[in-house]
Amino acid sequence: SRLTHLDAAGNAVMVDVSAKPDTERVATARGRIDMRPDVLDMIVNGDTPKGDVLAVARVAGLMAGKKTSDLIPLCHPIFLSSLRVSLRPEGSGIEIEAIAKTTGPTGVEMEALTAVSVCALTVYDMCKALDRTMRIGDIRVVQKSGGRSGSFVAPGESG
Amino acid sequence: SRLTHLDAAGNAVMVDVSAKPDTERVATARGRIDMRPDVLDMIVNGDTPKGDVLAVARVAGLMAGKKTSDLIPLCHPIFLSSLRVSLRPEGSGIEIEAIAKTTGPTGVEMEALTAVSVCALTVYDMCKALDRTMRIGDIRVVQKSGGRSGSFVAPGESG
Amino acid sequence: SRLTHLDAAGNAVMVDVSAKPDTERVATARGRIDMRPDVLDMIVNGDTPKGDVLAVARVAGLMAGKKTSDLIPLCHPIFLSSLRVSLRPEGSGIEIEAIAKTTGPTGVEMEALTAVSVCALTVYDMCKALDRTMRIGDIRVVQKSGGRSGSFVAPGESG
Amino acid sequence: SRLTHLDAAGNAVMVDVSAKPDTERVATARGRIDMRPDVLDMIVNGDTPKGDVLAVARVAGLMAGKKTSDLIPLCHPIFLSSLRVSLRPEGSGIEIEAIAKTTGPTGVEMEALTAVSVCALTVYDMCKALDRTMRIGDIRVVQKSGGRSGSFVAPGESG
Amino acid sequence: SRLTHLDAAGNAVMVDVSAKPDTERVATARGRIDMRPDVLDMIVNGDTPKGDVLAVARVAGLMAGKKTSDLIPLCHPIFLSSLRVSLRPEGSGIEIEAIAKTTGPTGVEMEALTAVSVCALTVYDMCKALDRTMRIGDIRVVQKSGGRSGSFVAPGESG
Amino acid sequence: SRLTHLDAAGNAVMVDVSAKPDTERVATARGRIDMRPDVLDMIVNGDTPKGDVLAVARVAGLMAGKKTSDLIPLCHPIFLSSLRVSLRPEGSGIEIEAIAKTTGPTGVEMEALTAVSVCALTVYDMCKALDRTMRIGDIRVVQKSGGRSGSFVAPGESG
Repeated sequence: SRLTHLDAAGNAVMVDVSAKPDTERVATARGRIDMRPDVLDMIVNGDTPKGDVLAVARVAGLMAGKKTSDLIPLCHPIFLSSLRVSLRPEGSGIEIEAIAKTTGPTGVEMEALTAVSVCALTVYDMCKALDRTMRIGDIRVVQKSGGRSGSFVAPGESG
Repeated sequence: SRLTHLDAAGNAVMVDVSAKPDTERVATARGRIDMRPDVLDMIVNGDTPKGDVLAVARVAGLMAGKKTSDLIPLCHPIFLSSLRVSLRPEGSGIEIEAIAKTTGPTGVEMEALTAVSVCALTVYDMCKALDRTMRIGDIRVVQKSGGRSGSFVAPGESG
Repeated sequence: SRLTHLDAAGNAVMVDVSAKPDTERVATARGRIDMRPDVLDMIVNGDTPKGDVLAVARVAGLMAGKKTSDLIPLCHPIFLSSLRVSLRPEGSGIEIEAIAKTTGPTGVEMEALTAVSVCALTVYDMCKALDRTMRIGDIRVVQKSGGRSGSFVAPGESG
Repeated sequence: SRLTHLDAAGNAVMVDVSAKPDTERVATARGRIDMRPDVLDMIVNGDTPKGDVLAVARVAGLMAGKKTSDLIPLCHPIFLSSLRVSLRPEGSGIEIEAIAKTTGPTGVEMEALTAVSVCALTVYDMCKALDRTMRIGDIRVVQKSGGRSGSFVAPGESG
Repeated sequence: SRLTHLDAAGNAVMVDVSAKPDTERVATARGRIDMRPDVLDMIVNGDTPKGDVLAVARVAGLMAGKKTSDLIPLCHPIFLSSLRVSLRPEGSGIEIEAIAKTTGPTGVEMEALTAVSVCALTVYDMCKALDRTMRIGDIRVVQKSGGRSGSFVAPGESG
Repeated sequence: SRLTHLDAAGNAVMVDVSAKPDTERVATARGRIDMRPDVLDMIVNGDTPKGDVLAVARVAGLMAGKKTSDLIPLCHPIFLSSLRVSLRPEGSGIEIEAIAKTTGPTGVEMEALTAVSVCALTVYDMCKALDRTMRIGDIRVVQKSGGRSGSFVAPGESG
């Protein structure tokens, strides 16, 4: 088992996927941003127009998911056949989920993870004047299917 | 105290900063990515050429920091006068820090946070074949100076 | 009949096209920019080197067509197999046409419309010092073929 | 009076603005997209969650305004100090307005016009499955101030 | 034999490749950057941390190869299945090689050439404070296979 | 004398320019692309519509110059106040020159060099079906002024 992005001489390469078959691949990533309760209230039902912070963050996540190969040096450009990003309040913050789908030779974890990350950063940006102690975290892949390595459900995650 | 990115009718806007003076602004953000010990070893002193995963991730963080306003819908484009990204092993993962600097009317927290996030995503991408349970987290601003709101050091953070 | 870009909860999503078959799809869009007669003359046969405003605008339209999914949040990234943009003087302005083609699961109207729009904006930019009353309009799809919904020719348009 | 984007030999150039003073510049652009009444209803108060099409289009307009110099070949990159995009139903469609602001040597008409155009294209994209005869038009500058050429209000426009 | 990127009226177009079959295509490009011997030493074994200039340049080349269709107006967007960039000292400078691969209707020479060019520019950027007389050159395709025109090995090149 | 893009630990950084004064800076870069005489003829006066290959390449060079900081990892984003790109036949190929200008704390060599490189790549792309042995080279800075290091004219270059 080796880091596949490095060749024999240790140089970074975008690995050759030309021999891998096209299969349908789905990946789900999650993450969250935590904040002060009053700021969370303000976002969710407060004096801000309902839904707008969440709407802007959702769009930002979608657009960033499409830019993944532009941001992550060794990611292949892919044709995303679907991407959905959702946000919902949970505990002391907002839980973010992105589901990416493609038919191709490479997985879409990075697309889902990038969508979640930029979605969280956008919430941060829109609320930073109110709370300087917000924190983004728990960004991980919770489920993935398709490809040689088969399906994966992270232990302890609801599907 | 209101969400400044929304106007009276609740529409998202890129807020007007034309009346704000240019001041020197610095922001430091941190975050981390955790992984299995054997994968961390492999990155840090293992059988991969030393430093290369870290070098690629550092470059990705720098380049992403410059693209912040392209990713975050309501962020102003700015002239970044400096950006540095560093990674070091700590505990069960890698701690990432980015320091951004500008002279201008808006802060650079988002640039530092974006650099940290994409840096972590790049480590994830390069190691995902080895460990599917990695987790990115603790992304936050630890220090900021300049601008109307004055300096800020997050409680409990070393400067 | 529903807005397909919104899910059951009203959240914007990039719709799933993974079950749609790849077919050849062509779309033609048109639009125009109107201006003062002397400015039109200057562009077309006047004291500017023949063709150069038009040549720059044509290139801008081609390049923008390739960036469509970067600009329009819910557009899928696609492989454009052909794109052509043409401009010709007509009446009090310049008529612009773009024809986009792909083999894939989604249509290419947005690519053709984006190419026309940015082409017109570029003519505007290059002439705005001469005429501040130019106007861009009549941007529409005139013809499309391929895909489940079959062929379409807009009423009253020449093919 | 000459096309300033072309040099003596007729070659396209990005004109030299280094001798122009920094002044505050504001530009307002407007445009519209027309559609079938039932589709307009669906967007505005219909069975789609209120505001979401409009919210996505607004974000797309804001993000595109920031990319103007990336799209229009001879446009200078600028620091936008403010950008706001608004949409409201009017007659048989939606009227779009963008107001851009900068302090610098060049105007911001192109940023406002680009924001309006991409905002309209996004509405088109989200509704194209319902109505294939939508039309984008009347894209123009209605007001501008700052810079050598002084203020301008287009005849017949409300400020 | 004609310039295929121009239509009958001499207008630039992105040529139609929809009738071309998908085949595996590989292209190798090379180029070099020459510099003063002391600067070359400093990069290769000198007082700079080993490999870092080269590592940054390699990443820049990989990322630029993925942006080719964004930079070259008439290039088709493609799915790159592999890209590798390598640098090695040779004579009075650094020899750069990029190998690009795709399965599709168009070749990948431009992707390989763009990767080499931006890789060289990045070395230039990182060393320009030390040597203002560096020179980038000899950028060419040395080998290509796949596609209607068959394989090609440039005369006098080692494969 | 050290490589300024690397910090004490050898990590790549975008160096801090916040203490450098804004000065007017100009840089001129040149390069060339060589080809078979019949292809050169075809471009310059041949059976292709005069000027179009050159016009497309010029636009590509201008647009790439504006993207320099997006391509070169450690380049600062800057406000380019002027950029001009010109091409003229010379000997067995086409000589390309780009002149970039800014008022700011950093130089514009990279912008001029990037414009020249992408301009040459575009000529290559448009003629590659006719000649597979073209070669891009001699890319260098011929003149630069402004900044701490003072003016520079490369030995043996005409200004």
